[in-house]
Amino acid sequence: MHQDKFEKVAGNGLINRRYLLGLGLSGVGIAAASSVLGADSALKIEIPTWSKVPGPGASAYGRRSTHTEHMQRLARPPDPFYPGGGASLSPLQHLQGTITPNSLHFERHHAGVPNISPAEHKLVINGLVRQPLVFDYEDLLKYPMVSKIHFLECSGNSGSLLRGGNADGTAQSLHGLVSCAEWTGIPLSTLLDEAGVLPKARWVAAVGADAASMGRSVPLNKALDDVLVALYQNGEPVRPEQGYPMRLFCPGWEGNISVKWLTHLKLTNEPAQFRDETSKYTDTQPDRSSYQFTFRMGTKSLITSPSGQMALNRQGFYKVTGIAWSGSGSIRRVEVSADGGRSWADALIESNQFEKALTRFSIPWEWNGGDAVLQSRATDDQGNVQPTRDAVIADQGAINFYHNPCIQSWGINSAGEVSNVYI
Amino acid sequence: MHQDKFEKVAGNGLINRRYLLGLGLSGVGIAAASSVLGADSALKIEIPTWSKVPGPGASAYGRRSTHTEHMQRLARPPDPFYPGGGASLSPLQHLQGTITPNSLHFERHHAGVPNISPAEHKLVINGLVRQPLVFDYEDLLKYPMVSKIHFLECSGNSGSLLRGGNADGTAQSLHGLVSCAEWTGIPLSTLLDEAGVLPKARWVAAVGADAASMGRSVPLNKALDDVLVALYQNGEPVRPEQGYPMRLFCPGWEGNISVKWLTHLKLTNEPAQFRDETSKYTDTQPDRSSYQFTFRMGTKSLITSPSGQMALNRQGFYKVTGIAWSGSGSIRRVEVSADGGRSWADALIESNQFEKALTRFSIPWEWNGGDAVLQSRATDDQGNVQPTRDAVIADQGAINFYHNPCIQSWGINSAGEVSNVYI
Repeated sequence: MHQDKFEKVAGNGLINRRYLLGLGLSGVGIAAASSVLGADSALKIEIPTWSKVPGPGASAYGRRSTHTEHMQRLARPPDPFYPGGGASLSPLQHLQGTITPNSLHFERHHAGVPNISPAEHKLVINGLVRQPLVFDYEDLLKYPMVSKIHFLECSGNSGSLLRGGNADGTAQSLHGLVSCAEWTGIPLSTLLDEAGVLPKARWVAAVGADAASMGRSVPLNKALDDVLVALYQNGEPVRPEQGYPMRLFCPGWEGNISVKWLTHLKLTNEPAQFRDETSKYTDTQPDRSSYQFTFRMGTKSLITSPSGQMALNRQGFYKVTGIAWSGSGSIRRVEVSADGGRSWADALIESNQFEKALTRFSIPWEWNGGDAVLQSRATDDQGNVQPTRDAVIADQGAINFYHNPCIQSWGINSAGEVSNVYI
Repeated sequence: MHQDKFEKVAGNGLINRRYLLGLGLSGVGIAAASSVLGADSALKIEIPTWSKVPGPGASAYGRRSTHTEHMQRLARPPDPFYPGGGASLSPLQHLQGTITPNSLHFERHHAGVPNISPAEHKLVINGLVRQPLVFDYEDLLKYPMVSKIHFLECSGNSGSLLRGGNADGTAQSLHGLVSCAEWTGIPLSTLLDEAGVLPKARWVAAVGADAASMGRSVPLNKALDDVLVALYQNGEPVRPEQGYPMRLFCPGWEGNISVKWLTHLKLTNEPAQFRDETSKYTDTQPDRSSYQFTFRMGTKSLITSPSGQMALNRQGFYKVTGIAWSGSGSIRRVEVSADGGRSWADALIESNQFEKALTRFSIPWEWNGGDAVLQSRATDDQGNVQPTRDAVIADQGAINFYHNPCIQSWGINSAGEVSNVYI
């Protein structure tokens, strides 16, 4: 394994991100993979069945490999007292890069997924405007749009960690309420310009066409900044579970405020005090008071592999990889620790570092067969540093479970089992 | 329609990209879309069925809306003399933004789609290397990767235009062999470093595990530059039709060289002279000689709406939108003409302008009910300007149909019918 080649950059086996891994077996006398190029070589390989017979041809709508069908969202079981309510979590431990395929984007519904006919759907803008307006779907398609890659994260993501428990959690079950896509839509400012916002207006109350009439109040300054009425997701029309035919999209803010199935925007002077900004999605403090309108998601990262319920089957080299994101800007740096935070090394950034988008990182690691605790820590371009779990609890207690950006610790025991640990 | 508000920026109705469109109908006395916010208003709307009853809850694997299922690839009919051979084209006229959903990414197969078991698949590197190597799929997953958003275009895309015909073509049928995704993979340079490229090596012969043993020769300097062994596509494992479990990905170059189902890389001193770089994928000139190894795709753009077989159903305002890309770099500028190239106006760039990636543009246009010819013209950051069809034919004749980047002309007649025209 040429151990001397590897420059150790932090405790317990973290290796310089620029390294030669050397996992290819010697090919001398073993194999030439294709008969086409094999003639001039002494190497020989058995030609696999799939190389001998033509496969099926092109199709109208593609499917993934049967070998990848275990990559599924984790849908919480239906609750008879909450029809259509619930969530499904992205299989973060199986994904790579930064984009989440639409079929695996996390969901959160308050009354299930309405089956909306776009021809009958309307978007109304009224309230404190010079000219109330009603838009058809087809008319909205004629507006100039913006395409941006952004993460979306439920404010309840990772929330259970603050209360303890969940030793058997996976990256998906503990943190899978975050995904990332290219969102294409009309800047809300364009539509508000046309309606003519009156000087008294301070908020935009947004309501969806689902049976919950899910509503949230958006401060006007955010609405005029980077909020979209999103019509497309990764190039295709927004999926029903993401708000087809249209949703609000508020970059960097808690997912709930990006109201799906958007049908009504009302300009107001005060927040509308919807159910989902009073009884829910408020941050309860140790003294039982609650912070309302904590919109911005934190600066955060997560190691997706190795992660909970995985097993390391032998000592040696592993790729530690994960995602980082910030509601405040772009990711500047990700550090990784293998000794529970005693020492840290800079990870390699594998992807673009877009503003308010998932960013992919990795670092090589040599597991020596002993105990280890893997952690990652993100820093964004505003200088925000991801906090420890202790720091989050010290700051806001453990009653609240919204807006938890804390560092995840994955413990590895001498059997190679990976599990969520609290240190 | 407040026509005086619109600053005309080029002939035949092109309007300044910064404008107020004003398509919302007056909402006074018409509608309040949600009962939640309707109480304090005199407005009234009929609540749609889907807002009254909870819909189905979260699911393990999402599907698109039934209202969007007409967005399909156009798969050429199977040819009994070419089993598994053929292509399917992306529905460009239905897509927005820049990412192509994996299920709608174009395909091109030479012997169909092999059903490869990743556990049995090998990647061999041999030839002019110090140490021949064999990689398992699982071992490759441990290497540092890079995620980049890049277009992929078949070199035969748009080729039929040079020979005339196809008056009834659509954006999809004429130009649908281009798509764009986030590709995640191992820099080929990393694996070649480990094998140790010998000084005599100049080419990398790449072969796929399909029944065609599709092979292409990649110049070593490109292989060491930005070529990937791609394992993921838009976050999930590469789809079977895109090369599962792995493909070569050569950014900016003709699609065929990004060998799918990659199983063998052999370092050589000369190109391998595979069938698909001799009898095909070579550019036949007017004197019947052929250029070999024309790898780089051109600087190109395409209006996707309005486009062939669409119909404008009334005079007035339309959004002209499309995609632009360059095999040489990023898109710097897109111009649009509504009068067949006599006058041009700068389009609005709606998306990021990544290197070797699709870029989305748009411009508002007022159709006066008369004849019009819509065209778009891309310029990249290297100063390359998309050529006219006449210029391409003057340069290389009309026998060749590979590597055609020419400007597409969409003619609109007084009935509002849009069709491919040659001007």
